[in-house]
Amino acid sequence: MLDPARTIAELRALHGLTGDRHGAQRVAFTPSWNAARAFLLQKLADLPVTVETDPAGNLWATLPGESEQELWIGGHLDSVPNGGWLDGCLNVFAGLEVLRRIQGESAGRPPVTVRLVDWADEEGRFGHSLYGSSAVSGHLDPERAGVLTDRSGVTLRGALRGAGIDLDCASAAQAQRRKAGAYIELHIEQGPVLERLGLPLGAVLGTCGALRHLITVTGRAAHAGSTPMDARQDALLVLGRLSGEIYAVAERHGGVCTIGSVRTAPGIPTSVVETCEFTLDQRHLDPAGLAALWQDARASLTRFCEEGGCSFTVAELFRIEPVPFHPDLIDAGEQAILEVTRAAHRLPSGPLHDAAQVARAGVPAVMLFVQSLGGLSHNAAEDTRTEDLELAVRALDRLAERVMTWMGTRQAHGAADGETARRGR
Amino acid sequence: MLDPARTIAELRALHGLTGDRHGAQRVAFTPSWNAARAFLLQKLADLPVTVETDPAGNLWATLPGESEQELWIGGHLDSVPNGGWLDGCLNVFAGLEVLRRIQGESAGRPPVTVRLVDWADEEGRFGHSLYGSSAVSGHLDPERAGVLTDRSGVTLRGALRGAGIDLDCASAAQAQRRKAGAYIELHIEQGPVLERLGLPLGAVLGTCGALRHLITVTGRAAHAGSTPMDARQDALLVLGRLSGEIYAVAERHGGVCTIGSVRTAPGIPTSVVETCEFTLDQRHLDPAGLAALWQDARASLTRFCEEGGCSFTVAELFRIEPVPFHPDLIDAGEQAILEVTRAAHRLPSGPLHDAAQVARAGVPAVMLFVQSLGGLSHNAAEDTRTEDLELAVRALDRLAERVMTWMGTRQAHGAADGETARRGR
Repeated sequence: MLDPARTIAELRALHGLTGDRHGAQRVAFTPSWNAARAFLLQKLADLPVTVETDPAGNLWATLPGESEQELWIGGHLDSVPNGGWLDGCLNVFAGLEVLRRIQGESAGRPPVTVRLVDWADEEGRFGHSLYGSSAVSGHLDPERAGVLTDRSGVTLRGALRGAGIDLDCASAAQAQRRKAGAYIELHIEQGPVLERLGLPLGAVLGTCGALRHLITVTGRAAHAGSTPMDARQDALLVLGRLSGEIYAVAERHGGVCTIGSVRTAPGIPTSVVETCEFTLDQRHLDPAGLAALWQDARASLTRFCEEGGCSFTVAELFRIEPVPFHPDLIDAGEQAILEVTRAAHRLPSGPLHDAAQVARAGVPAVMLFVQSLGGLSHNAAEDTRTEDLELAVRALDRLAERVMTWMGTRQAHGAADGETARRGR
Repeated sequence: MLDPARTIAELRALHGLTGDRHGAQRVAFTPSWNAARAFLLQKLADLPVTVETDPAGNLWATLPGESEQELWIGGHLDSVPNGGWLDGCLNVFAGLEVLRRIQGESAGRPPVTVRLVDWADEEGRFGHSLYGSSAVSGHLDPERAGVLTDRSGVTLRGALRGAGIDLDCASAAQAQRRKAGAYIELHIEQGPVLERLGLPLGAVLGTCGALRHLITVTGRAAHAGSTPMDARQDALLVLGRLSGEIYAVAERHGGVCTIGSVRTAPGIPTSVVETCEFTLDQRHLDPAGLAALWQDARASLTRFCEEGGCSFTVAELFRIEPVPFHPDLIDAGEQAILEVTRAAHRLPSGPLHDAAQVARAGVPAVMLFVQSLGGLSHNAAEDTRTEDLELAVRALDRLAERVMTWMGTRQAHGAADGETARRGR
């Protein structure tokens, strides 16, 4: 029988073992992360599962089923430094509870093979987010990853070696994908949407694509006292107009736009701003929407510069395409939520998740989000109501059940792997 | 006979003696400033004037007249490092040429006593702008000035000692004011107003008051990917709205407003700006106008914060009251300009000048501005057309003549010193 209270108790015990007064400290490949994995292994020991670590360092617990087709339930034990008690490990321990329930009810032989996966270094200690799931999806480049270091100068390659992993062989973890039939993951929302709607749970549509630009606007330095307002070429005014315009742009196309970092030169009180440098981050679930966000922002920037006697240059800092989840599984996620609570909501994920890597590799995937109090995450104040956590575990369990049924139907109708891959993208 | 070409030749010779390829280097109390003064003294040696240095280090050349009442013609030989060839010394050498003309025409006995003054350290090498004229006006505080150092750590007190000046006695220079009847000064505009109007010369209404605030707007940090636009408390958006609003505020009340320096926190591309700190510099010739500029800006800031879910704090960084020039002398300045060219313009001065210190002390004062090419100043590219420089010398000469007449009329009508002081404020 499913026991969501046990999940919460396990999460609290884990936090007691690995956290401190500054928050969670389960940073990948550190002793406290090892302690978290040891805690998980101890819990898995009570189940008739085979446990293995793949060549990238991801931990797999496999419960064989009637079919070799696999349902994956994923999460990540690692956290950012001074992180929250739920981010990533709620996923793992809720998955563990679902695995227990399936094993118990099916007398050890579920219809499909069920695997719990704890992805390694989701948070990107070395600047490479989703390290472990990238290896499995085939998106890890050992040459690029080989030069990465953490904030203390420790290399990714060295940290892996300390864990018995050879970075150059990590991509062999792709072999895990051979029998993958579907992937599900529960995560805290890390945003305010569900809280504002008063809903505990939502089905995630996919992860947004992101475009990040560094924009430099150049006007003309001029004495703050002797230069009339209509004789100014004020680079700050261009930023100011754009800071409001991005709200209209996002209103028009959906998605989000953020100006997060600003620098001004000469940067003294007595001079009109000559140069204003700032970042513009834009995210959208749809590639065309993402392109439209940047096209509109750029057009406005061009106009504001022309009207203000300024010029600008642009450098692309970062780009990732949107990853939509599988429509059937999104439906299943919504139905699973409606089994445990009165209403569901569909929402995109702004942040990236391991589920996106799995989906990019062609495995049908979906996520559930549970409400985050205050939308907070990546700090010690991260929290979710106990009753919502319990509902989340129940919903994940219902989703697992529905996806197993879906996998059976799909297999019966002979859905080719090629079709799976195409629809999952 | 007035010879403006001689003034330009003298300025070029001075620049050859004391400048280098980076610009003018006549920084107060340095060897090249001493060289500039030696050059001036050599020119003064040809005239029947008495030359003295007052207790603050200002240099005075006095041509006695029929009346003890004094007309002062002022300027400053000192420059900023890597400064321009005209700022301050145009004033002095144009004044010298006017002194020569008056001496020549009056056979050594003009109606009033005429004094050419070269103010010490106008540019504020030690962070105290208008040092020499402050001492004469009674606005030098030796205790405050005693702690000042320049960028190399040289103290104002030490530099004065090297020039034979005791800072604690500098305020004795106030005695110079006993017979002061009027003050005139020619200066380059250091802004673009006259150039835009296509006019060589303008009569200055006074120096603007300035209010400078440090404003800190606080919103809420939130993930750029997971926070919908309408759930944001974006401190940058408040700055953005204010950066445009200050143009409307200045349009409404006159004067100028400048946001010159901006810092954002956390200042990363992936977070909505939580804290935005910036400076707001506002200037106006009228105290009520200056107060209205700040009142309106503050009201808008309050509204933008309320609408954007943010709060703000304010710290006053700097404040100086406006110093209007004498209305009769402004009229005289305009008439003098119209004697040498087809049109005149009245304009306030955003930057401070020695004339403001003299006016604050109750001496009727006025300035003339001559066009600056490109509005540039305080760098080697500072320049003014030769024909405009010649017109400027002619206009200063005509102004001197008009002011001498005005002083005579005033004395005949028995204007009390008290009244002079009151009207001049």
